[in-house]
Amino acid sequence: MTRFRVAIQIVPRRGLLDPQGKAVSDALHTLGFATVGDVRVGRHLVLDTDAEHEQAARDSVKRMCEQLLANPVTEDFHIDSVEHA
Amino acid sequence: MTRFRVAIQIVPRRGLLDPQGKAVSDALHTLGFATVGDVRVGRHLVLDTDAEHEQAARDSVKRMCEQLLANPVTEDFHIDSVEHA
Repeated sequence: MTRFRVAIQIVPRRGLLDPQGKAVSDALHTLGFATVGDVRVGRHLVLDTDAEHEQAARDSVKRMCEQLLANPVTEDFHIDSVEHA
Repeated sequence: MTRFRVAIQIVPRRGLLDPQGKAVSDALHTLGFATVGDVRVGRHLVLDTDAEHEQAARDSVKRMCEQLLANPVTEDFHIDSVEHA
């Protein structure tokens, strides 16, 4: 078994309202960043897991996203990187 | 002015307790993902902004992170990508 460090990005699906992103955009305008447009706020997870090889780690993390980490109705997830930890 | 789409990652500083990451790790163990170790939960932001050129967009987003988006005491931020929107 090898230890892998996996980075995952989970973002609200395009087209859905993102209230947190809207709040951040408004706050940036208030601070004077007038050129800021759309802001989307998602989650960035970094997790360590043991697996036989990289593809096994990737498959396992995909199942974690589907079962717990991402909301399948409102969010998209993307496995950004899988590296030896 | 050109419109840029900037992706930012904001993560809890290594060495600091991350209660949300601990909760996710425990939940994954409960679901049967026994090989999962450390989990860190941060934020992934994607924002659109207008700037003269890429470096100006990057500098502007760096100031946004310092002034609003990241907690300078507990978090590190990283500008992941700057692309034409």
